[in-house]
Amino acid sequence: MTGANCAIRGTFFDLIDDPWKHAGHEQEAARFIQDGLLVVKYGIIEDFGPFAEVSQRHSGLQVTHLPNRLILPGFIDGHIHFPQVRVLGAYGAQLLDWLQTWIFPEELKYRDRDYAATAARYFFDALLAGGTTTCLAFTTSSPVSTEEFFEEATRRNMRVIAGLTGIDRFAPEDFLITPADFYSQSKELIARYHRQGRNLYAITPRFAVGCTAEMMDSCRRLKQEHSDCWVNTHISENPSEIRSAREHFPDCTDYTHVHEKHGLLGPKFTAGHGIWLSSDEMRRFSKAGAAIAFCPLSNLFLGSGLFRLGRAKDPEYPVRLSVGSDVGGGNAFSIVRVLEEAYKVGMCNNTMLDGSVNPRDQDLAEADRNKLSPYRAFYLATLGGANSLYLDDMLGNFDKGKEADFVVLDWMAGQAAMSWHQSLAVEGDGPETMEQAAQLLFGIMTTGDDRNVAETWVAGSRAYQKAGA
Amino acid sequence: MTGANCAIRGTFFDLIDDPWKHAGHEQEAARFIQDGLLVVKYGIIEDFGPFAEVSQRHSGLQVTHLPNRLILPGFIDGHIHFPQVRVLGAYGAQLLDWLQTWIFPEELKYRDRDYAATAARYFFDALLAGGTTTCLAFTTSSPVSTEEFFEEATRRNMRVIAGLTGIDRFAPEDFLITPADFYSQSKELIARYHRQGRNLYAITPRFAVGCTAEMMDSCRRLKQEHSDCWVNTHISENPSEIRSAREHFPDCTDYTHVHEKHGLLGPKFTAGHGIWLSSDEMRRFSKAGAAIAFCPLSNLFLGSGLFRLGRAKDPEYPVRLSVGSDVGGGNAFSIVRVLEEAYKVGMCNNTMLDGSVNPRDQDLAEADRNKLSPYRAFYLATLGGANSLYLDDMLGNFDKGKEADFVVLDWMAGQAAMSWHQSLAVEGDGPETMEQAAQLLFGIMTTGDDRNVAETWVAGSRAYQKAGA
Repeated sequence: MTGANCAIRGTFFDLIDDPWKHAGHEQEAARFIQDGLLVVKYGIIEDFGPFAEVSQRHSGLQVTHLPNRLILPGFIDGHIHFPQVRVLGAYGAQLLDWLQTWIFPEELKYRDRDYAATAARYFFDALLAGGTTTCLAFTTSSPVSTEEFFEEATRRNMRVIAGLTGIDRFAPEDFLITPADFYSQSKELIARYHRQGRNLYAITPRFAVGCTAEMMDSCRRLKQEHSDCWVNTHISENPSEIRSAREHFPDCTDYTHVHEKHGLLGPKFTAGHGIWLSSDEMRRFSKAGAAIAFCPLSNLFLGSGLFRLGRAKDPEYPVRLSVGSDVGGGNAFSIVRVLEEAYKVGMCNNTMLDGSVNPRDQDLAEADRNKLSPYRAFYLATLGGANSLYLDDMLGNFDKGKEADFVVLDWMAGQAAMSWHQSLAVEGDGPETMEQAAQLLFGIMTTGDDRNVAETWVAGSRAYQKAGA
Repeated sequence: MTGANCAIRGTFFDLIDDPWKHAGHEQEAARFIQDGLLVVKYGIIEDFGPFAEVSQRHSGLQVTHLPNRLILPGFIDGHIHFPQVRVLGAYGAQLLDWLQTWIFPEELKYRDRDYAATAARYFFDALLAGGTTTCLAFTTSSPVSTEEFFEEATRRNMRVIAGLTGIDRFAPEDFLITPADFYSQSKELIARYHRQGRNLYAITPRFAVGCTAEMMDSCRRLKQEHSDCWVNTHISENPSEIRSAREHFPDCTDYTHVHEKHGLLGPKFTAGHGIWLSSDEMRRFSKAGAAIAFCPLSNLFLGSGLFRLGRAKDPEYPVRLSVGSDVGGGNAFSIVRVLEEAYKVGMCNNTMLDGSVNPRDQDLAEADRNKLSPYRAFYLATLGGANSLYLDDMLGNFDKGKEADFVVLDWMAGQAAMSWHQSLAVEGDGPETMEQAAQLLFGIMTTGDDRNVAETWVAGSRAYQKAGA
């Protein structure tokens, strides 16, 4: 890849391991450098560590100093819909009605190249303003939307994954694509975009309810012929959707089986939601190396339910997890807001599992795994998301050799009460310890929002700066 | 009361009835004036209606024109903790642990007059920045905090209700107050503040778990001697708390009975949360004219549970409802954010009641009552909140004779995606119909936050203006 050179001095916080593996000692999974230096060459991290050490190893650096900020790896959004940028927060229904009323009509507009190109600018502007540098995105069943998505991502040099989004039933006629067309158009798009620049391609059956067995077979064939590609879909979001999936795949024992049967469940497979997956299905995800994108903003907004985070993080069968905004089911692009809602979902699960509601449901270990500390939360948004997408060799933290996408957080910005709140954790110039940094990050994720993103850098270049920052 | 004179021209939206009574025709409960004029004299609404009519009736008005804005009655926060302004969004536990770890130590600081006075400035600044002009607030068990609360409210001429907050067990020693001291100090504070300026007094037993029967008897005596005062408390927030309340009032059949037994459940009584109230308890609330403050930000943040909004709005036994931020259990002062989370809680209830999860729980009418349209939402935040607090003779909408507290909303502000989103509802200069206004308001409550509050006016004076607005 290509990228810029830069040298950034500031306070850095990143994750080096899964904090759930270090319960009670989560600091072991993180790295905090109060006065650090990040040296980037052609968009790749060439060196990283304490300023006093790293600066010795390089001469003639032009250093950009970012004081009073926390610098984290760029956020990864594991589930988002490009053609829903305009209809985020649409009124009033659960998943299936909401799709028919608001989403399909809006997505149809993306056959128009000008509309799709305009939308792509709004979309990537909104991502960057929320600190997101990588996403796994749905487009529409029109190649036009997929092309405009990749063209805009290319202009911004962002590491993205997306693909033509297949649906061949239960949507307006104009919106459907035949399995044969989906197969051939996907192949063309793969040839044109996959691993071109920072673009990566995902074979994308929208969801099993909208896909016939023939469509799923097209996906299987594509994955067999392009095993390097990703697979992106939805699973077990809403009870009525699950019932419909079961009815339309009567030969499958459960929703996950649909994907197993068609050879898709495995590495580089991500399904959004997974709220209602059984423990058995979660174990099969774990064994297959498949991932779930946890989308709490959307899951609450559409009333879909509470994802069982603590179950997914079962130490015997951990499922790879990212967090996703799921815009437009989710009502904000901000990953900070996603983490806020993820924390809340976890706390609701915590109460349901402590035995106080129903002693039969008591599971104190799982209850504890639902508690989203700042270590766990920002792991999901960075290294954990990268791991779930099989991108952790190139993204997710500040290890040398990784791509230099990062976000610069201002812990004092936001609602009127924010600055006094944060002064409880840190007085003066900024955090001196990892624990103080974690407290500020918790303040950001619970009391903050996109206003806390001061700058977003992509491949060594500043791609966003907040007005007035 | 005293207040300023002003004449405001702009686009007005308010509620004139409970929209739940007009299901399917919710517009009947609202009032929309595209080009309106609000004439205020000494802080009271003297005239209101279309500009063309109202301006004829008054000569020599100095009109303040607020174009491209939606003007609504000031928001009412039915449940908030003054001494938690700094600790909003504190990490990691359900109610009882969270109180011991974060809240009681912070609230103890409010015995210091300087600290309490500083906090009061932050607190009211944050309220106004969120568009809130009236609140029902807890203070601490120290009269100092209560005094500083009322002194700052007086300086701002805001209509507030608060009172010394009684707790005589299960908290740090320094934090407790004896029932006798609570009684005598409450009487002093009532004499000093109740109906002085716009201040109103609430007899405030913190919650039954923290109050002995003797403390509850002090409250009963206070209410008997000062029947014009309000009563403010918590109820049925968390399963473990409910168990504790039951254990410590073994002669009461349920949590509500504690308040009935001590003569408190009735008009002007508000309890926060009520998540786990039985249907029978809700009916008793309804019959007594008692109110619940629905606090979704907090209920999710502390994992307390999902308030049964649709049950509380049972047309046979409707319970008076306000919404509350419950800062610091709630993690934002913004009533717009409160409505967002209220919508989400309602949608989660909707799914649980449509029969798709468990056919035994199917109740489609109740499911529908959980859907928080913008009419219902802004009713709760304005006229509904006023009704629940028995303040609707003086607050809640733009009827003549009411107090002129109002909020000026900018529907385009907020996250990067906001303006394109709102352009789906309205192109050009602003809403021309009530339905368009309602769509913009829904956009604000789901996709916006405190940034949408451009100005807040109190008793005819501008009390807050957003930076840059």
